[in-house]
Amino acid sequence: MAADPVPLAQAMIRCRSVTPADDGALDVVQRALEPLGFTCTRLVFGPDDYRVDNLFARRGTAGPHFCYAGHTDVVPPGDPAAWADDPFAAVVRDGTLYGRGACDMKGGFAAFIAGLTDYLAANPNHPGSISLLITGDEEDRSVDGTLKVLEWMQANGQVPDMALVGEPTSRRALGDTIKIGRRGSLTARITVQGKQGHSAYPALADNPIHRLVAALGPLLAAPLDNGSEFFPPTTLQVTGFDVGNKASNVIPAVARAMLNIRFNDHHSSATLTERLHAALRAAGCAYEMQADCSGESFLTRPGPFVDALSRAIARSTGETPALDTGGGTSDARFIARYCPVAEFGAVGATLHQVNESAPVDELRRLAATYRAILEEVLA
Amino acid sequence: MAADPVPLAQAMIRCRSVTPADDGALDVVQRALEPLGFTCTRLVFGPDDYRVDNLFARRGTAGPHFCYAGHTDVVPPGDPAAWADDPFAAVVRDGTLYGRGACDMKGGFAAFIAGLTDYLAANPNHPGSISLLITGDEEDRSVDGTLKVLEWMQANGQVPDMALVGEPTSRRALGDTIKIGRRGSLTARITVQGKQGHSAYPALADNPIHRLVAALGPLLAAPLDNGSEFFPPTTLQVTGFDVGNKASNVIPAVARAMLNIRFNDHHSSATLTERLHAALRAAGCAYEMQADCSGESFLTRPGPFVDALSRAIARSTGETPALDTGGGTSDARFIARYCPVAEFGAVGATLHQVNESAPVDELRRLAATYRAILEEVLA
Ligand SMILES: [Zn+2]
Ligand SMILES: [Zn+2]
Repeated sequence: MAADPVPLAQAMIRCRSVTPADDGALDVVQRALEPLGFTCTRLVFGPDDYRVDNLFARRGTAGPHFCYAGHTDVVPPGDPAAWADDPFAAVVRDGTLYGRGACDMKGGFAAFIAGLTDYLAANPNHPGSISLLITGDEEDRSVDGTLKVLEWMQANGQVPDMALVGEPTSRRALGDTIKIGRRGSLTARITVQGKQGHSAYPALADNPIHRLVAALGPLLAAPLDNGSEFFPPTTLQVTGFDVGNKASNVIPAVARAMLNIRFNDHHSSATLTERLHAALRAAGCAYEMQADCSGESFLTRPGPFVDALSRAIARSTGETPALDTGGGTSDARFIARYCPVAEFGAVGATLHQVNESAPVDELRRLAATYRAILEEVLA
Repeated sequence: MAADPVPLAQAMIRCRSVTPADDGALDVVQRALEPLGFTCTRLVFGPDDYRVDNLFARRGTAGPHFCYAGHTDVVPPGDPAAWADDPFAAVVRDGTLYGRGACDMKGGFAAFIAGLTDYLAANPNHPGSISLLITGDEEDRSVDGTLKVLEWMQANGQVPDMALVGEPTSRRALGDTIKIGRRGSLTARITVQGKQGHSAYPALADNPIHRLVAALGPLLAAPLDNGSEFFPPTTLQVTGFDVGNKASNVIPAVARAMLNIRFNDHHSSATLTERLHAALRAAGCAYEMQADCSGESFLTRPGPFVDALSRAIARSTGETPALDTGGGTSDARFIARYCPVAEFGAVGATLHQVNESAPVDELRRLAATYRAILEEVLA
């Protein structure tokens, strides 16, 4: 009989692990993994007021080395009164598990451990080796989690040959979508310095609003690209534009803008930052710009690893998974620097929402699918 | 011997007539005009908390009817401690009269009355008639002053054939500039309604900043005109652009802009307002716009009246006056609806400033020039 992911998911949900709190969640995981033959290492990073607990677990040392990556932290539940149940009670009702993290991603993570349990029972002498990279810092800063565990793994000879991030990727039916890449995200904050003056005598002033409009206009007039083989077009959104001037006849001295670019594999944060500089220079702006990249774009091109995932998912779910690159950023962007990485998990319909939930049947089918994945990628 | 404008200017400056206060200023004027044969009518307009005193004075009933227009109100002095003297003491030192209004325009107004006194002494049976339209509401709202006195004049058969506004128009030397027109001023406040969303999914949102930039870009890309015979090019200045969004990954719902147009005789507030609507519509904006015109542009084309002014000024000062349309708005914009109007007065170097002043010699030469003007325009 197959291992049931539900009790483990409930035990994890009952830990109030809102980033960066752990509240025992990694202990629950470690207690599940150690009987399966995993060597567990706890890795604590971060400043005193933001301590993050992480877990690296590995079984075996042979290649190929397959790594499952995930997180035990959750976003805040908001007002608990808006929920039908206590968000940390992990109630099962009418075949559905409710609670913060049921979908993103304690439910899916428990399904992986259940599938892993069954896989190991059937394949005690499997080829290669298996590891888990689990962080408590995915939903907020993402600084003292996966990023630093990977540095530790590299320093300790633990870099995997392939990795699967267990985020909820399925759209409508379990198995319909694998993410093989993500867009990058660049945020820029621009301050243009002009010269204050009276609107009746603009020749004596330098209007920073006009300069910003002249710089932004061409950036907005045409798409930055038309998409690529696996990516939609890059998008640039100006999300702030502020001056704070109340007097209609005064040309202000300073104008500020803020923008966010979600970019595909045609670009990098460096090429885009230079493009913004060029647009500002072309408009004659005297400016300062702060550009922050929360993640470069990455793509794991279809090949043996992605093919193995697709085969296993099709065999287990009957779906032919689409190879997708949509959505925001995930920790896969950090792993992509080390090895091929893809993302596959539950249906993300209620992620980050009130009354977050996962159907029990879906979690059990996901466990079977993860088992099928292990069979394919370690074959 | 010529009448001296200085004692009268001092008496006017010593009235603290910061708009809409009068503090006896019009009484000083009326006491000067009645002995010269003027019939004086006081006209009080405005709400209870903003009562404005005005004076209409006329001598004779024959045509042509020449009207001198001016104001006795002044802008606030600001911090009196920043002044070398009490701003209302009207101190004369080293040949210069100091005080709020010395330049704009109690000094010039006193010079007109001095020149008028000399003119009437030499021409007791002059042709035509002379009037004065004096308001206490020029420097602030300009609602209960010249505008309403003109309506009263029209209702009472007192519309002049020509008018001279005594604002300080000279630039460097007395007599170097006559203003024969003024640009208009239109202020527009625009609110563009978009649809809020996440910057990673712009297709699900509608970015009002992008729409505003798309609407403003073409308006700013090229001048609205290249100027006209007597006017510089129209200028459009965006003086506000505000969103108030702090989250770089949130597309805001609303963006606001404010702009001010100073326009020449190629435009009216109506044609410009329509132009703004067209630009907003072309960018697909869902918007509201409030457009306020504080004055249409006007032009008194060179002809017998302007020629007479130029002749008189050249004869009296030795300067050939330039025909100018620069600067902000004045009450001449209201008078232009009724008759040809021009503006001529002192050098405006210290207008509205701390230690506002007028050289005594300049006020006396201005009195002689106004006398010469009366001789020319009533010839
Ligand atoms: Zn997640
Ligand atoms: Zn004035």
